[in-house]
Amino acid sequence: MNDKSYLELMGARIRSELNDLKRTPEAAAEELGIHAEKINNIIKGNCSFEDIRMLIDKMGGFYPIDSSDLYIPLDDCTNGIRIIREENSKNSSRIFTRKDKDGSRTPYYEYRDTAMSRLSPFKPEWIKELRVVKNLDPENPDVVYNNGHFLHQMTIFIGPVNFYWEVNGKKYSEEMTTGDSNYITPFHRHSFSSRDESKDAIIIAVTFGGDVRRAQKELYVLGEERTKNLFIDYRNHNKAILQLIQQHIRNENLSLLNLEERTRSMNLHLSTDIESLFSKNDEVYDSDKKILAKALNIELSDLMIPLYNPEEEVVIKHKNKGYFYPNNEEPIYRIHPLARTSKMPLMKGFDIEILKKSEEITNKFESSLHYYIYNYGGTDVEFNWEIDNERYKETIYDGDSIYVQPFVKYSFSNPGNDHGKILAIGVSGAINLSTQKELSYFSDLRRVSRETKQWFD
Amino acid sequence: MNDKSYLELMGARIRSELNDLKRTPEAAAEELGIHAEKINNIIKGNCSFEDIRMLIDKMGGFYPIDSSDLYIPLDDCTNGIRIIREENSKNSSRIFTRKDKDGSRTPYYEYRDTAMSRLSPFKPEWIKELRVVKNLDPENPDVVYNNGHFLHQMTIFIGPVNFYWEVNGKKYSEEMTTGDSNYITPFHRHSFSSRDESKDAIIIAVTFGGDVRRAQKELYVLGEERTKNLFIDYRNHNKAILQLIQQHIRNENLSLLNLEERTRSMNLHLSTDIESLFSKNDEVYDSDKKILAKALNIELSDLMIPLYNPEEEVVIKHKNKGYFYPNNEEPIYRIHPLARTSKMPLMKGFDIEILKKSEEITNKFESSLHYYIYNYGGTDVEFNWEIDNERYKETIYDGDSIYVQPFVKYSFSNPGNDHGKILAIGVSGAINLSTQKELSYFSDLRRVSRETKQWFD
Repeated sequence: MNDKSYLELMGARIRSELNDLKRTPEAAAEELGIHAEKINNIIKGNCSFEDIRMLIDKMGGFYPIDSSDLYIPLDDCTNGIRIIREENSKNSSRIFTRKDKDGSRTPYYEYRDTAMSRLSPFKPEWIKELRVVKNLDPENPDVVYNNGHFLHQMTIFIGPVNFYWEVNGKKYSEEMTTGDSNYITPFHRHSFSSRDESKDAIIIAVTFGGDVRRAQKELYVLGEERTKNLFIDYRNHNKAILQLIQQHIRNENLSLLNLEERTRSMNLHLSTDIESLFSKNDEVYDSDKKILAKALNIELSDLMIPLYNPEEEVVIKHKNKGYFYPNNEEPIYRIHPLARTSKMPLMKGFDIEILKKSEEITNKFESSLHYYIYNYGGTDVEFNWEIDNERYKETIYDGDSIYVQPFVKYSFSNPGNDHGKILAIGVSGAINLSTQKELSYFSDLRRVSRETKQWFD
Repeated sequence: MNDKSYLELMGARIRSELNDLKRTPEAAAEELGIHAEKINNIIKGNCSFEDIRMLIDKMGGFYPIDSSDLYIPLDDCTNGIRIIREENSKNSSRIFTRKDKDGSRTPYYEYRDTAMSRLSPFKPEWIKELRVVKNLDPENPDVVYNNGHFLHQMTIFIGPVNFYWEVNGKKYSEEMTTGDSNYITPFHRHSFSSRDESKDAIIIAVTFGGDVRRAQKELYVLGEERTKNLFIDYRNHNKAILQLIQQHIRNENLSLLNLEERTRSMNLHLSTDIESLFSKNDEVYDSDKKILAKALNIELSDLMIPLYNPEEEVVIKHKNKGYFYPNNEEPIYRIHPLARTSKMPLMKGFDIEILKKSEEITNKFESSLHYYIYNYGGTDVEFNWEIDNERYKETIYDGDSIYVQPFVKYSFSNPGNDHGKILAIGVSGAINLSTQKELSYFSDLRRVSRETKQWFD
């Protein structure tokens, strides 16, 4: 993105905000004490970045808006991707120490940043396990658990790594090796160690934020007490559904009696009376959910939450035989899916073995997800991609990583005879299924990605 | 929120970001060229706002993050609410002109801001219709349609207002009056006029942003071409479901052949082969959706989209007889629901007549939604609310409006003998059903609303 087009983008965003505030540039100019011509020029991008900052500061001071929301991040990618070479990654190396069983602090992890971007929802780290253990004991005093963290984590294992985790005060462990993977629910404590000092024991820890991370501003303002009200008891499925129903009843400003009258007047008949629905902790029938959704002006899917599966608190996935893409006869790749959880439908990971030399690959990958790619195979890989109908390619060496923006088309090929091996992890950004559905209701898409008009004459 | 607690909140947010970046204050200090002690003090809130700004600027310059995201908006509410008195509202008055049938620009609308906040997803305006018409003709040359806007709109009508709208190039109109309401899908062109110059013709236009508005930064970076890929053809239900299925297949990096092999190996049997599923535009059976959800590692609800209802492009709702809350025997309120659409399950509006003098109301309203309240009844209303176990009350006069934060408990009563009449419109912020579900998976809620810990030792 060149400077001029970035200024234009910021101008469009400011126009969008003035539209939301129902201000013409002239009306805003008077309130903010700036010349209308100046505002008009800023909207067109005929200005400096300092002009934009001045206007946003004045808007934030005068109007009740979150002015920080007006800054579109400057795209730090080139043609839709951002490559981090292994050398740059090495430059960010930090060694973190932990106490050992004797109480002295010794090296535990080496951390290195890999591909990330202002636009990526993830911040993946290459982490070398420096503490070597002799057994798999999850209570090993040489193994130090962290406090758990706010971000979701998908981990990919390279070499002889032991993985440790704690759920409900109980500690677990598992031997992992190259191509294995896991998913860790936020705030579960965990740790990693090496079980063989003669080999490199490495993880790629892809930590990423989801809807909760994106709601962080609101959650911080609400504070702990009010945030608790949002909690649905997902680990108790029947209760969770009843909580969702109750919340929608409250949202509709109905008493239980009012709701009963409403279903009756709509000629809808629940299998039980509403009082007893809530007095027990039984399963709510789908037919009752449908009736309640109708009476509460919501969709059936608004009363659904995934079934709790204790194994999804921390998902362990050992590498399986995978499948040949797109078919067994002329495969381009051998793909091994990494850890999955249906509660995170837009988190997808793959270990991909590249089988073709040719760059002329018709089956390109393309998705609404933000992708992270890491070359761990010890050989060079050719990365071919396409954006705005232009094609590009770059050689990706062992230890290099790439951030790929949504809807960039891409494929991999081998420059030499060896099969390349890469990891590819996709997660959604602010554009998730819910955003996509809402977007699809809009009657004009053009102005969504860049406001081009004042909406009144 | 006093200054000190705001600085502490910002400090907690910075700690959260350093956690995400896997930086100790010491590691960050070295990279940013600041003393570690300074960073530690900022994290504790022992600093000035300028210190915070300095640190955020340095972090934004060094790390690939969207640094504007680190600013928590300073809460502009008092005890969870923000009242805008009618006088303040009047001070924001702007008159907008439009061409009339003779081509001369004459006054069309008077706009006044009402209650809004840095935290509210809505920006409601009091709008007086200044153009008076003699008929309901939607093609009346005196009626000027706008270009449609990016925000959703719920409108409440007070007095003799004509409403006009355009869908697919066809213009419609409807006579509206006090207590009537509508919902307008983003970008549908619309207009309002008065049909009686002897009376005030007013609307309260509650414009608000949803998930798309909150994804605006990403959409602006993606641009128009790539944003188009996100569109699901919601107006063609069968096609929309097939598009969702295709998107999830792409997200799983599967060819159709791979998917067929996968369902076979899972011993799941679709009612048809996958090729013919996509070659027709037929309804996909629920049983097939369940199989596909399983094979694609998603939930059934991820393959659902509301049935298209053309009447929901623009919803017209005339005031109905309403219901007595919480029961007919001892009613506190008479409630008339305003326009609803199941495609926006967290948009709820009510016209509420207050029947009680007593403030001792046990059935308090409380919800996860952000609420907008407007007194239109010509009489004083007592607003009673509770936050953090403290109770407050304020008299709300005719024309006053209030923004109420989520999970504030509140009720209304009449100080005099007249029945008060208020409008209450709730919409969700970043904490929608999807955020709530994700939040419920987290294993520790305390650190979600304020990061208290470095996550490693």
